[in-house]
Amino acid sequence: MFKKKGRFVKKTPLFHFLSKKVLFLEPVFLLSLRINLLSPLLQQHQKPTNQPGFCTLIMAGKNYYEESLELHRKNKGKIEVRSKIPVNTIADLSTVYSPGVAAPCLAIHENPDDVYTYTIKSNTVALVSDGSAVLGLGNIGAAAAIPVMEGKCMLFKKFADLDAFPICLDTQDTEQIIQTVRNIAPVFGGINLEDISAPRCFEIESRLQDLGIPVFHDDQHGTAIVTLAALINAAKVLGRDLNDLKIVINGAGSAGIAIAKLLRGFGQKNPKVAVKHIILCDRKGILCKNRADIAGILHKMEALLYTNPESKHGTVFDALVGADVFIGVSQSGLLKAEHIRSMAKDPIVFAMANPEPEIMPEEAYKGGAAIFGTGRSDFPNQVNNVLGFPGIFRGAMDARAPRITVNMKLAAAFAIAKYLKNPDREHIIPAALDKKVATAVARAVYKAAMQEKNP
Amino acid sequence: MFKKKGRFVKKTPLFHFLSKKVLFLEPVFLLSLRINLLSPLLQQHQKPTNQPGFCTLIMAGKNYYEESLELHRKNKGKIEVRSKIPVNTIADLSTVYSPGVAAPCLAIHENPDDVYTYTIKSNTVALVSDGSAVLGLGNIGAAAAIPVMEGKCMLFKKFADLDAFPICLDTQDTEQIIQTVRNIAPVFGGINLEDISAPRCFEIESRLQDLGIPVFHDDQHGTAIVTLAALINAAKVLGRDLNDLKIVINGAGSAGIAIAKLLRGFGQKNPKVAVKHIILCDRKGILCKNRADIAGILHKMEALLYTNPESKHGTVFDALVGADVFIGVSQSGLLKAEHIRSMAKDPIVFAMANPEPEIMPEEAYKGGAAIFGTGRSDFPNQVNNVLGFPGIFRGAMDARAPRITVNMKLAAAFAIAKYLKNPDREHIIPAALDKKVATAVARAVYKAAMQEKNP
Repeated sequence: MFKKKGRFVKKTPLFHFLSKKVLFLEPVFLLSLRINLLSPLLQQHQKPTNQPGFCTLIMAGKNYYEESLELHRKNKGKIEVRSKIPVNTIADLSTVYSPGVAAPCLAIHENPDDVYTYTIKSNTVALVSDGSAVLGLGNIGAAAAIPVMEGKCMLFKKFADLDAFPICLDTQDTEQIIQTVRNIAPVFGGINLEDISAPRCFEIESRLQDLGIPVFHDDQHGTAIVTLAALINAAKVLGRDLNDLKIVINGAGSAGIAIAKLLRGFGQKNPKVAVKHIILCDRKGILCKNRADIAGILHKMEALLYTNPESKHGTVFDALVGADVFIGVSQSGLLKAEHIRSMAKDPIVFAMANPEPEIMPEEAYKGGAAIFGTGRSDFPNQVNNVLGFPGIFRGAMDARAPRITVNMKLAAAFAIAKYLKNPDREHIIPAALDKKVATAVARAVYKAAMQEKNP
Repeated sequence: MFKKKGRFVKKTPLFHFLSKKVLFLEPVFLLSLRINLLSPLLQQHQKPTNQPGFCTLIMAGKNYYEESLELHRKNKGKIEVRSKIPVNTIADLSTVYSPGVAAPCLAIHENPDDVYTYTIKSNTVALVSDGSAVLGLGNIGAAAAIPVMEGKCMLFKKFADLDAFPICLDTQDTEQIIQTVRNIAPVFGGINLEDISAPRCFEIESRLQDLGIPVFHDDQHGTAIVTLAALINAAKVLGRDLNDLKIVINGAGSAGIAIAKLLRGFGQKNPKVAVKHIILCDRKGILCKNRADIAGILHKMEALLYTNPESKHGTVFDALVGADVFIGVSQSGLLKAEHIRSMAKDPIVFAMANPEPEIMPEEAYKGGAAIFGTGRSDFPNQVNNVLGFPGIFRGAMDARAPRITVNMKLAAAFAIAKYLKNPDREHIIPAALDKKVATAVARAVYKAAMQEKNP
């Protein structure tokens, strides 16, 4: 995208540096690029210029980078810790601090559950990252991850009124991460694992499920939930039964694995969603029993338990023949119209590689795609995590759920899907910035959590 | 205090429970009790009554406990995480989050020092406790410590505009605490260790001095710095040379050890403060070479290197004979007028056990005390940590000091002392709630830190 529109951009050294890196950004707010690049007014003026104001609108890349640097520098970061209670008098202080504070301390000491009554725990989330897979920037480390984590803390506040604090870890050792999260848990009511690379993310999340508070890796389940929501509405629009769809997922990292598990109903007795035919592919093709190269890779071996029931083998293109759905969490430019044409009639294509999808919309439609979605905001049907995590944590924490179960994830996905009263082919998922979605998700997740508590 | 005034208090079960525990509270805000208990108006009405409003003023204990419980319950804790930047439009979001946020991330990745430029690090303090020595309540655990830590976060904000966040650790293992602090360090510009019991607090703090950011155990050095400030002015008022004073410290826990080290100039080549004669006592008397019982206790053995140069032995009462200064961080009711009388002429007595000091003022003055101070706000000369830590962290962090050195501690103590233009026997230390003290301390600590950077 930047390359193609590159001629409109003043190419500073910073821009060159960033333009190579920015190709894998999260879907969330690329909408801004649409405004800048597609506005007819601006199209008339797509020339390099040094006029301030005008320039800053046109030069999407440069502008946001330089503005962002300036904003971060000026404010020294984006979040702060504030008192919720005015403290003006000595009597105020005697109530919030010594001697009065002894009362809630001792109440909690007597009854540990009172920590939810008298402290910030019930509203506080740790945003934990080791900086190993930040946005699409890769393993840039804990300190360099802080601006993203601060940004996500702002989204928690804006969409769910939750107080999230960044915990960026100066270790990428699985045992150290698990132990550190355990050690710091008392003040938090939920743990959002973020931007931790596969396969460590699977073990870290799994082993923390006994912590007594929700521990949720958003790059896995957030993506899976929002994808499922989109698929529910796509099936509805096309008059198809979701569970009968033949689905090909390309990409077997944290997102691909989580999507496959959720769609399959993995680990559930009577799953509400249980797609029978799912094929999962990685860079080398279909995950199947005769792939010797995956023998030592636990999450890929495990995937054979819930995908590829007919033991197919071959490339992702082989897998696509006769399939109803393509879900890409992989690489840009993978597919052509002919691949879509090889699929079953009226196929659903979610090409979520970012920002360049696996196939561009015109090409997909040319191949016969009935419904097309991406991670991008400048095309219809943007599949975006921000529709999920704020409401999921709000609902789970309000219910005091000890963990976020498959039922709660399904409830979230159905709530997002149902939020759209009349979905159509170009509107299968709500807008990313609609705050009411989080409220609907929170309500559904809360209800699911309470039903599990009192079945 | 509560016992003596108990007849005015409606003795609820909660009160009975708390009244036994509350005897060891920090000095900070007991001023409130003076207002309640000493007000002539209220003295006329010291009878139990159920009238609301009236009751709540008289019944200091019960009132603050019940009000505090109610306030904590109603607000679900006292602090929150907020955005410093309004986020109203998609353009705002594109600057604070994706895609713009990639710019500060990559800047930090390229130049790690930029974490101070683009993130909250430069203004953010971790308030780390394991809940092993909370106020005077003892080892009540991490969760029960949260209300105190939240309160201290409020003080950091109020007095130094620093963003402090409570990290309450679900471990009391020295190695785990050290490793966890190392792991979470990236987002913090300073670490305030708090309410961690001796002797673990010594090792934990000492081994974290290589972290590159200030790591400071307030129960040790905060207390020592404010005590030294009081002593500087006491010596000035009496026309004495501080370094020539013969000082007896009773209590060899975190506070007593830190006070002795700071007064002695321990570890400094040419210390500005270097009191020649310090005797440190614990419950069993003077720390001396022939005390077989301290052989295995590192911090008490080490104390022999900088205290008791004449190798005295005996009780604290023996130590007091001919001494110029008594500093008590020990137990209430230890001393009588006769012990003060055994000291040198015009002795200085800081009886800082809380809330009942080692000796009450009238008794100390009867014994001939020239200057008397306590941790209490209802007597003159309140020695209170809040005069120290906010300004110390502000100054050290603004200077990007890698640690808080002895010189910086001395600078803080002298700044507090000098803040009082004209100290007299009843005013040797500023008022605890004077915000300008923190500013003066920050300036002095900053200057000392910069001098050490560029000597």
